[in-house]
Amino acid sequence: MIKLDFQKSADGLLPAIAQDFHSGDVLMLAYINQAAWDKTLETGKAHYWSRSRQKIWLKGESSGNVQEIREILVDCDADCVIYKVEQRGGAACHRGFPTCFYRKLVEGNLEIVETRVFNPGEVYSFKG
Amino acid sequence: MIKLDFQKSADGLLPAIAQDFHSGDVLMLAYINQAAWDKTLETGKAHYWSRSRQKIWLKGESSGNVQEIREILVDCDADCVIYKVEQRGGAACHRGFPTCFYRKLVEGNLEIVETRVFNPGEVYSFKG
Repeated sequence: MIKLDFQKSADGLLPAIAQDFHSGDVLMLAYINQAAWDKTLETGKAHYWSRSRQKIWLKGESSGNVQEIREILVDCDADCVIYKVEQRGGAACHRGFPTCFYRKLVEGNLEIVETRVFNPGEVYSFKG
Repeated sequence: MIKLDFQKSADGLLPAIAQDFHSGDVLMLAYINQAAWDKTLETGKAHYWSRSRQKIWLKGESSGNVQEIREILVDCDADCVIYKVEQRGGAACHRGFPTCFYRKLVEGNLEIVETRVFNPGEVYSFKG
């Protein structure tokens, strides 16, 4: 069985990259601990550790935009993983964009390069 | 000018994802601090902060496999970036594979799904 190297970081968290299984677009990066990793493998849905809320987070638990795991890749040092996913709802970002990487650096400034799929105010009770 | 949120992590480091500009394959994940980020913008070549060596690291300084920046994306919280790069030498991983994510999880075990491009022993003086 695969063991990830959670000891690598002081806080026991490792980065997990969510990538669209079809397009290859990087959707988001979040963190996992052992429990979030176990829950992901057990359920086939992406789980992370929320650093702000200090709890396991089923991605999409508020928005419904869950990520169904299609494939998992593990890096050379076993300290980073890629979740290749089916992104439900067409948007991974809590700000309503398809990916969290909706801004491109152009001459030192950020330009929005994606189109909003949903209005965060209608989906979340907090201001996105 | 864009400011990344380096204060977000206790150690002042943020994850940077290197993605192949052409194929969209995720090549690797490494960490940046303010100095590595500045150096990347200044030179157009991917620089990271090496946690093991505690120094700025020009990716490819030993192997020659530098990463030329074609585009940079910044996430919603300004605490993660994607370097879209031209990967020189056809391999990003110090173990000689095209990407660091050369292993796929299959029924709890890891299977190698890429083909080695170079022999680490011939490229590095340390054992890869």
